[in-house]
Amino acid sequence: MAIALSELVGYVAASLTTAALIPQALLIWRTRRAEGVSIGMYIVFSTGVALWIAYGLSARAWPVVVANVVTLGFSLWILAMKLRFERATRHGAKPMQ
Amino acid sequence: MAIALSELVGYVAASLTTAALIPQALLIWRTRRAEGVSIGMYIVFSTGVALWIAYGLSARAWPVVVANVVTLGFSLWILAMKLRFERATRHGAKPMQ
Repeated sequence: MAIALSELVGYVAASLTTAALIPQALLIWRTRRAEGVSIGMYIVFSTGVALWIAYGLSARAWPVVVANVVTLGFSLWILAMKLRFERATRHGAKPMQ
Repeated sequence: MAIALSELVGYVAASLTTAALIPQALLIWRTRRAEGVSIGMYIVFSTGVALWIAYGLSARAWPVVVANVVTLGFSLWILAMKLRFERATRHGAKPMQ
């Protein structure tokens, strides 16, 4: 089953835009810091990704569903860490340098 | 021309995941700070978005092209600011509180 080149480009694009959140999540996890990270971004981004999942389900586009479920997981993880470490920093906890 | 509900969901999803980068770009622009922002994320993300543009061109999916050209613009802006303000901070410039 030869996969069309453009379809392959689509799969690689989906993998990269999903995987891109990993370095950001690990940076926050490692340094316990997220001051420069925008809460607004991850609220809007998570909402958009949730809608991509709804779109994928309705269009039976399973790669769109799978890629965006993984992306939503990372996006919500980043949001949760941002809220948690921001509260900790406000209550005097020292972020790791 | 009635637009299918699922197509509408797709357009809203694309707009949100594109617009999501705006609060992050403005936060960095306003505070001149980007310590918590991951360079790795925006390099991988920009590469993925560029591939989405190539996919959209090859599949003649113009909404995919338009949304991702805008996204690429914001992603590269964030990357450029990250590199610029990081260098400035290393050379003793005071970030805005």
